[in-house]
Amino acid sequence: MPGWRHDIGNHSDKPISGKRIAILVEALFDDDEFMACKNGLVTAGADVVTIGPTAPSPFSGRNGLVVLSDQTARQTSVKEIDAVVIPGGFAPDKIRMRHAMVDFVRDIVEAGKPVAAISHGPQLLISVNAVRDRKITCWPSIAIDVKNAGGLYMDRQVVVDGNIITARKIDDVPALTASLVQALSVPTDI
Amino acid sequence: MPGWRHDIGNHSDKPISGKRIAILVEALFDDDEFMACKNGLVTAGADVVTIGPTAPSPFSGRNGLVVLSDQTARQTSVKEIDAVVIPGGFAPDKIRMRHAMVDFVRDIVEAGKPVAAISHGPQLLISVNAVRDRKITCWPSIAIDVKNAGGLYMDRQVVVDGNIITARKIDDVPALTASLVQALSVPTDI
Repeated sequence: MPGWRHDIGNHSDKPISGKRIAILVEALFDDDEFMACKNGLVTAGADVVTIGPTAPSPFSGRNGLVVLSDQTARQTSVKEIDAVVIPGGFAPDKIRMRHAMVDFVRDIVEAGKPVAAISHGPQLLISVNAVRDRKITCWPSIAIDVKNAGGLYMDRQVVVDGNIITARKIDDVPALTASLVQALSVPTDI
Repeated sequence: MPGWRHDIGNHSDKPISGKRIAILVEALFDDDEFMACKNGLVTAGADVVTIGPTAPSPFSGRNGLVVLSDQTARQTSVKEIDAVVIPGGFAPDKIRMRHAMVDFVRDIVEAGKPVAAISHGPQLLISVNAVRDRKITCWPSIAIDVKNAGGLYMDRQVVVDGNIITARKIDDVPALTASLVQALSVPTDI
């Protein structure tokens, strides 16, 4: 499986140039997880868009960072997005009640595109039944919900199972981002 | 089943005088649910104590109300408590990781004493496996977790199933409090 390399045929010198990645936002997202993930993906060459329940709208993280949503899930085609990131905090609890965002995540999962979820992010994966029989990590408070949903919970920095990539907490975000970059670096036209 | 009556043998003119009820607190509890529940129970004659992960310690609700914990779960005997209330907000997510508080709720449930949980409070009931095969209501974002835990989710104001009493949200707290008072008014020495 190719890693983060510069020799796999990209025309840019960045590993995932041209890839469009959606980060989901709602009130009370985890500020640090959002920023660390966004910065890592932009550094790797990705075009990052924020998707919220309304757009353009400001959403405040639980520590006060204000992020503007670029577009809504309803305005977004699965075809235009290569991967989705779900930061943690209490935003995933709120996104669970945003039907268009839930449907969007389900469609991305079913399209086989990578979905990366951090800390409480797997709550949304439970909502779209994407953890069943999959190896999953998460913030420990929701481990029981992951298990009850049929997930195979593991207390690891990052867990990759098919197109589902999960991490426990902010400290794990660099490793999660590397795994997502790796997943997106695999040629999809074979 | 006797209701909230003044003729069931209490020596006081309040329906649950002498009953000692523990309300669980942690950071980000729902301020309104805490206050409405506490006020309703005190009005009904209860002696309310707050139980937190440390005590005496201040805990801030998600809207800024500061509550002081009276004692810890470790300092509390199941025998001295007649019922437990779990307000919602994001506190239940945090309490799930406080082992002594989780064990205390499990012990109260197993002792057959009433446990009343509001909105996100049933997350803690999931942690102690108290929703399986029981009728439960909750905040809609966690309905899927309740179902995955074997609970029979119902979208009702208040649901009473044995000693487990649940409500969806702040608007339902008066009805929840009335159900808890009723449960505590049933003579336990028969």
